[in-house]
Amino acid sequence: MQNPTAAMVVIGDEILSGRTRDANMHFLACELTQKGIDLKEVRVISDDASIITETVKQVAGSYDHVFTSGGIGPTHDDITADCVAAAFGQHIDVRADARDLLQAHYDKTGRELNEARLRMARIPDDATLIENPISIAPGFAIENVYVMAGVPSVFKAMVASVLPGLTGGEPLLSVSERIERGEGDIAGPLAVLAEKYSDLSIGSYPFQDNGLYGANIVARGTDQAQLDAFVTNLKKVFA
Amino acid sequence: MQNPTAAMVVIGDEILSGRTRDANMHFLACELTQKGIDLKEVRVISDDASIITETVKQVAGSYDHVFTSGGIGPTHDDITADCVAAAFGQHIDVRADARDLLQAHYDKTGRELNEARLRMARIPDDATLIENPISIAPGFAIENVYVMAGVPSVFKAMVASVLPGLTGGEPLLSVSERIERGEGDIAGPLAVLAEKYSDLSIGSYPFQDNGLYGANIVARGTDQAQLDAFVTNLKKVFA
Repeated sequence: MQNPTAAMVVIGDEILSGRTRDANMHFLACELTQKGIDLKEVRVISDDASIITETVKQVAGSYDHVFTSGGIGPTHDDITADCVAAAFGQHIDVRADARDLLQAHYDKTGRELNEARLRMARIPDDATLIENPISIAPGFAIENVYVMAGVPSVFKAMVASVLPGLTGGEPLLSVSERIERGEGDIAGPLAVLAEKYSDLSIGSYPFQDNGLYGANIVARGTDQAQLDAFVTNLKKVFA
Repeated sequence: MQNPTAAMVVIGDEILSGRTRDANMHFLACELTQKGIDLKEVRVISDDASIITETVKQVAGSYDHVFTSGGIGPTHDDITADCVAAAFGQHIDVRADARDLLQAHYDKTGRELNEARLRMARIPDDATLIENPISIAPGFAIENVYVMAGVPSVFKAMVASVLPGLTGGEPLLSVSERIERGEGDIAGPLAVLAEKYSDLSIGSYPFQDNGLYGANIVARGTDQAQLDAFVTNLKKVFA
């Protein structure tokens, strides 16, 4: 059986301009791999309403799960929630359950739940809230799309709220073998092995440090015995 | 006049599985911003021939420039060059100019230019080589697509070979102002300012450290006088 598939959509001009270095993609990639969900594509797009709506529509139709990060704060450039609602043709407004969470939080911290903060309670009618233990303002899930914050600590917390509820496939296992030869000398025999172990995904990642060079050969698959057999064979070839 | 636009395509299963953390996106984003080329979209895709070909076709038709990273080494999973050739319906084979570069390099280092390494001389007929001072195997440019290596040091060197030949727009300037108030208190007045300075792209990036919280307000635009006026106004509002 095939593993479920996923796409990630990173939303934010600050990533595309280089002002901010995205940290969420690598985190999510590792979490999904562990869970047995195959991340197939990541798109980084700008804070543009029609682009966000169009992109979410496209990827939601192509993959089992879609995870978004960014654009759900209180400021004028936080438009993700409304765009995702539009992608599903859903009505969106301040929702009582989300407002209650924020109200309790701001009462406790002595800050005002003003109009800007209330934006963070805008949730599409049919969405389910995603818990945010860090800064309370929730994300939400609608159909197969999980809308989460861009701030890495909050993104992580939201992923932790979401993943246990998803059905994963077989976790992707991997083996890695360091071979101290030029990648060009490895490539030929490796291609033969890759053909033989066609169920495995086999990659070669060259390195160079302190004058030493070579490549790390990484094989990924769901069958440990097959991975072990591959490594044994690989070692034999490059002994 | 509008700045030229660009997209980046990051090719590699190792990024999507989380095994490798991409470093090229942030580097390219910064370089393009400095050059006055607007990076509009980044796609991270897997080592799948039809996906690579289809993605390159799509983005090459949508943006002024496309930069790819990854998949041009000597191993069986390095299929980017052939896929890009297919996207433009071009013939591709080992090309004499690229082979000569490799031959000279391997003669000098006493290694063999074997079949696998010759893969790195596969260049579409009408492409122009992109210089690689690090490990010699060249990238190439075809129409508006620049095909470069995934290894960060080589990617950087190739970008340095390419960018001086491109016409940039007005470099994007930015100003940043740290405001120590909750983002929810900043949002309302900031939205008013953002409306007033509609030529600027204005973002709010919350921070929290040692109990202090607030947001860095960043404005981007091409007119320094306007950016300065914005900051003056911003300071007045949050004095």
